[in-house]
Amino acid sequence: MKVAIVSGKAEGPNKLNSFDNALLKARIGDVNLIKVSSMVEKGTEITDLPKLKPGAMVNCVLSKITSEKKGDLISAAIVIAIGDNLGCVAENARINTSPKEVKEEAIDMVKYMMDKRNEKINEMVVEEINHKVEEIGTVVASLVYLNEEIIAIQ
Amino acid sequence: MKVAIVSGKAEGPNKLNSFDNALLKARIGDVNLIKVSSMVEKGTEITDLPKLKPGAMVNCVLSKITSEKKGDLISAAIVIAIGDNLGCVAENARINTSPKEVKEEAIDMVKYMMDKRNEKINEMVVEEINHKVEEIGTVVASLVYLNEEIIAIQ
Amino acid sequence: MKVAIVSGKAEGPNKLNSFDNALLKARIGDVNLIKVSSMVEKGTEITDLPKLKPGAMVNCVLSKITSEKKGDLISAAIVIAIGDNLGCVAENARINTSPKEVKEEAIDMVKYMMDKRNEKINEMVVEEINHKVEEIGTVVASLVYLNEEIIAIQ
Repeated sequence: MKVAIVSGKAEGPNKLNSFDNALLKARIGDVNLIKVSSMVEKGTEITDLPKLKPGAMVNCVLSKITSEKKGDLISAAIVIAIGDNLGCVAENARINTSPKEVKEEAIDMVKYMMDKRNEKINEMVVEEINHKVEEIGTVVASLVYLNEEIIAIQ
Repeated sequence: MKVAIVSGKAEGPNKLNSFDNALLKARIGDVNLIKVSSMVEKGTEITDLPKLKPGAMVNCVLSKITSEKKGDLISAAIVIAIGDNLGCVAENARINTSPKEVKEEAIDMVKYMMDKRNEKINEMVVEEINHKVEEIGTVVASLVYLNEEIIAIQ
Repeated sequence: MKVAIVSGKAEGPNKLNSFDNALLKARIGDVNLIKVSSMVEKGTEITDLPKLKPGAMVNCVLSKITSEKKGDLISAAIVIAIGDNLGCVAENARINTSPKEVKEEAIDMVKYMMDKRNEKINEMVVEEINHKVEEIGTVVASLVYLNEEIIAIQ
């Protein structure tokens, strides 16, 4: 199993388009996202996001937050921890919380998940994104599950 | 890729059954709906909804709204715009907003999405449904992704 | 089609971990859950949950509730009814409602769904779970769709 971790932030004229713009910035705006919960197989490899086939059905864990209040600091974090037998993913999204705290909360959650499964963490990757809202802003951080079917032929 | 656009409205004795009744009216009540976000492949064809296999796993974009307040006007709209390289889908659902506005908002959103992707719209289809709530009412509008596996053999 | 019905309850240091712990107790904590709506094919067989492959993509109907208020009684119920042509699943989750009522509501909803489809109920299974919240508690009840791909090789 291969996964990629991406993030994006954007403004937009309404909630839907703000969210869509953030997905575009994260380079996952042209596919169908199917939200899944938060586990990965053992031996999962974290890679860069390849170009995805427009319209493909893509499984992902999604951390996102939208705010319509000017000045709000919005943050989304996603963290993956991989062990010998499996891996866990935790997402966190907050308004007006220090980016450091949003990130640390996500890390604490994934550590706790791994601990509960008696898994030692061999590898951990964190992605975090922040945005100061101007009108209608969105941040997204996502772990994308990759497979041959969804990757565009270059 | 083939898609169908459907809608339905219904009352029911509780929220779950009201929603289920509206899905039945839309002729997607006998399948498992998996919600996906809102893109379609290039060359997507819009067709009538074929009879689906009961219990099949069906990907869809779903616009829905339920209200328990007698007299509420509930509206759901879904719009698909198709270009040369891909297509976008926008959904909109509102309470006590003029049906015309609900429809136009959805159209504006999809136009904006296509514009952001530098796609010219070759084809656009809108589906809109309204209902005046009596007790517990639901409207649904959905874009259903079709494939051989989910179509019932006649 | 084979399905399994499971449930679990747990406390945790935050909402995400509380929910994750409840999934672990239900023995579906090591897989990716994809939420689907609530229908099953005719001839669906209800079996015990086999050991699932860690990280597998698993379709499920999920009834869940989390509370952060000490003393809250949280309840989740799931019920499946199977007829000659298809089957229906209803979920119910409530706070501070008698477990008996939560269960009966779910049963009433599934009976109504089957009735609307002119299906006679040949088999019905109910799963219900309750928990008195200490700090941050979660209950989950789930119907899990099984297939060869997601079952671990023993």
